[in-house]
Amino acid sequence: MLIIITYDVSTVSAAGRKRLRRVAKVCESMGQRVQNSVFECRVDQMQLEMLERRLLDEIDPAQDCLRLYRLTEPVDLHIKEYGKFRAVDFEGTLIV
Amino acid sequence: MLIIITYDVSTVSAAGRKRLRRVAKVCESMGQRVQNSVFECRVDQMQLEMLERRLLDEIDPAQDCLRLYRLTEPVDLHIKEYGKFRAVDFEGTLIV
Repeated sequence: MLIIITYDVSTVSAAGRKRLRRVAKVCESMGQRVQNSVFECRVDQMQLEMLERRLLDEIDPAQDCLRLYRLTEPVDLHIKEYGKFRAVDFEGTLIV
Repeated sequence: MLIIITYDVSTVSAAGRKRLRRVAKVCESMGQRVQNSVFECRVDQMQLEMLERRLLDEIDPAQDCLRLYRLTEPVDLHIKEYGKFRAVDFEGTLIV
């Protein structure tokens, strides 16, 4: 399944900036960054649970905000993108 | 249908900051801000087309990035939120 992760982490303090870096790192390990605070991760149910657990370990729920959206397949029908960035197609053929 | 709108608008120039304000204004007119650059908009097909047209009028495709995700109903099953913000439930009873 394809999960969209968006987050707002409070960066007024050094601890907040550290949390932001750590949240980004977790997301990067499981998917691709498509915008500044938006990631797309293709995961199965077990990976999703692990991802959620790791993210919840990093954020401060009193200050930060984390949202996960699950897209229905086929995801092509549910995503539109405009502008300078084109995300990697996980399903497509990789040409090296 | 529920549409998630995410955008990155380049704010290095005054023109970019103006575009960012205008994109946010279009999104606010059609939905609710759930994070800094993330909006949830409940729209029908005609409203979606209008929303897309208005957003495309505002962004600079060479510098900015806009993504629209369409969630499948029931959306409760496709959204998880953690942390300090709780989005308004469009479907729920409004208690004043």
